[in-house]
Amino acid sequence: MVVLGIDIGGTTTTIGFVNENGEILAESVMPTQGKDHITKFLPRLFEQINTLKNNSKEKIELKGIGVGAPNANFFKGTIENPPNLQWGGVIPFADLLEKEYKVPVKITNDANAAAIGEMLFGAAKGMKNFILITLGTGLGSGIVIDGKLVYGQTGFAGELGHLTVKPDGRLCGCGKKGCLETYVSVTGIRRTVSKLLADMTEESQLREVSQTNLTGEMITDAALRGDRIALQAFEYTGDILGQKLADTIAFSSPEAIIFFGGLANAKDLIFQPTLKSMEKFIFPIFKGTVRLMLSELQNKNAAVLGAAALIWNELK
Amino acid sequence: MVVLGIDIGGTTTTIGFVNENGEILAESVMPTQGKDHITKFLPRLFEQINTLKNNSKEKIELKGIGVGAPNANFFKGTIENPPNLQWGGVIPFADLLEKEYKVPVKITNDANAAAIGEMLFGAAKGMKNFILITLGTGLGSGIVIDGKLVYGQTGFAGELGHLTVKPDGRLCGCGKKGCLETYVSVTGIRRTVSKLLADMTEESQLREVSQTNLTGEMITDAALRGDRIALQAFEYTGDILGQKLADTIAFSSPEAIIFFGGLANAKDLIFQPTLKSMEKFIFPIFKGTVRLMLSELQNKNAAVLGAAALIWNELK
Repeated sequence: MVVLGIDIGGTTTTIGFVNENGEILAESVMPTQGKDHITKFLPRLFEQINTLKNNSKEKIELKGIGVGAPNANFFKGTIENPPNLQWGGVIPFADLLEKEYKVPVKITNDANAAAIGEMLFGAAKGMKNFILITLGTGLGSGIVIDGKLVYGQTGFAGELGHLTVKPDGRLCGCGKKGCLETYVSVTGIRRTVSKLLADMTEESQLREVSQTNLTGEMITDAALRGDRIALQAFEYTGDILGQKLADTIAFSSPEAIIFFGGLANAKDLIFQPTLKSMEKFIFPIFKGTVRLMLSELQNKNAAVLGAAALIWNELK
Repeated sequence: MVVLGIDIGGTTTTIGFVNENGEILAESVMPTQGKDHITKFLPRLFEQINTLKNNSKEKIELKGIGVGAPNANFFKGTIENPPNLQWGGVIPFADLLEKEYKVPVKITNDANAAAIGEMLFGAAKGMKNFILITLGTGLGSGIVIDGKLVYGQTGFAGELGHLTVKPDGRLCGCGKKGCLETYVSVTGIRRTVSKLLADMTEESQLREVSQTNLTGEMITDAALRGDRIALQAFEYTGDILGQKLADTIAFSSPEAIIFFGGLANAKDLIFQPTLKSMEKFIFPIFKGTVRLMLSELQNKNAAVLGAAALIWNELK
């Protein structure tokens, strides 16, 4: 018995067959070509799936399909006008796949899928209350309360990247100002470096790189070499993240907050200032009750595992 | 069949028998005398209950006891060192009552109890995802997700009064700075009036009242008469509340936020600036999905109903 996990990204779409132990038996990648209409995407996807299935050494007994995709609505099974995919409006994606493969299909956004993946196969095994935060281009989150993902009334709950840090702060892609992800994400820390290059006078190798060319790894490497601007950028980022984590803890009192993605790879550089700030802003009753952890799926194909976990979680 | 609801406050303790329709068949009040040890409180409570039971015209068939109390731990059934009650540490309150009355006992804090009361008997009937906020001396909250109260890992989730509004803001009773309840509560708006009396030069009747003597009603009355300071105090309060509600919506995507307590009685004076600010800070996907409502238990004994609802909710 296997589950098909599908991760739809703006650039590539990855598919993989995942068994109940969270092992990926076979996987393959294709370009998403997000500018094409859904009617062009689907036949390519089906072909990709069928090829992977036919090439498998073992017999594939498919129990279901889990999909991680932007702007995915878990309740309706739809993908609704994601900015990176010109598919043409609200797509009943789960229905389309169910019709083709005659198995249950579940769909949610990538951070939610990653949270379920972490619960079944990663750092959150056995946990009932935790939050997964992805620190990539943006800041995504999946919130698990009492063993279940929080979808809320709309199906879109868990948008912690759009908590407001500063009412008149940085302009966000969503149209608001001061959103958490404009500070805390790979994009956010790059913006912070630009700010600090303006504010500070210290020498820094980061002064030699354009904002466009600057990567999270460069900031991490510079910080590890003792670069003052890079170190200050992590302090600034952790200060803000810790404060908003304290708010989040006041809300749902999780036992752990698990980090995934590019910026999380900086480990203590980001965790130490975050923890310091979190302890400052945490409501006293919650002191010492929450662990900050690194994802255990960082080096695996977490997106495919997470998507497949959506189905394995229902089967359990 | 009835349930006994007990509301333990710093000053008074109210008890009442509540039927499954949310009708209070009989109730009575006694002083809490919080400076006494638990061993003095309990015999008085038992006598109060027995008297109410014996005086009832109908036969009391007791199905359970629900308790709303400060620092109550739902999971453990304990009341843990509440600041207003010198009971002597961590009290196994549910066990003590179960031993006496041989029925199930559930215990939680007053805002959580009020949320369940609202779900069974008030404005949240039929809702699965909503948040109740009490605006009294402090700001309390009860969060319902997927039809269940959120307790979190510790049992203490839902402390929205201690979200951080301003990192270096007003000192809070909890020891932190800038907590939401130092701005948004009856106490908070009184502090805001003091600030505005310093900042502004407009004439105001509020200049004639000491901070200690100032009440929420006085501020509401002054605002209704067009007092500029009072009106500005509501604007200031609503601005902050709306921003933090937008954060809360990004977290759990509720269908309604229901307000209870003294400051909620100011209605549009507080709701209008709150709604305006909330719409400004809300993540676009949630626009128009959340109603701000007034409790439907405002004029009833909501605390006793809520406490009793803890049991009725389990029996359903």
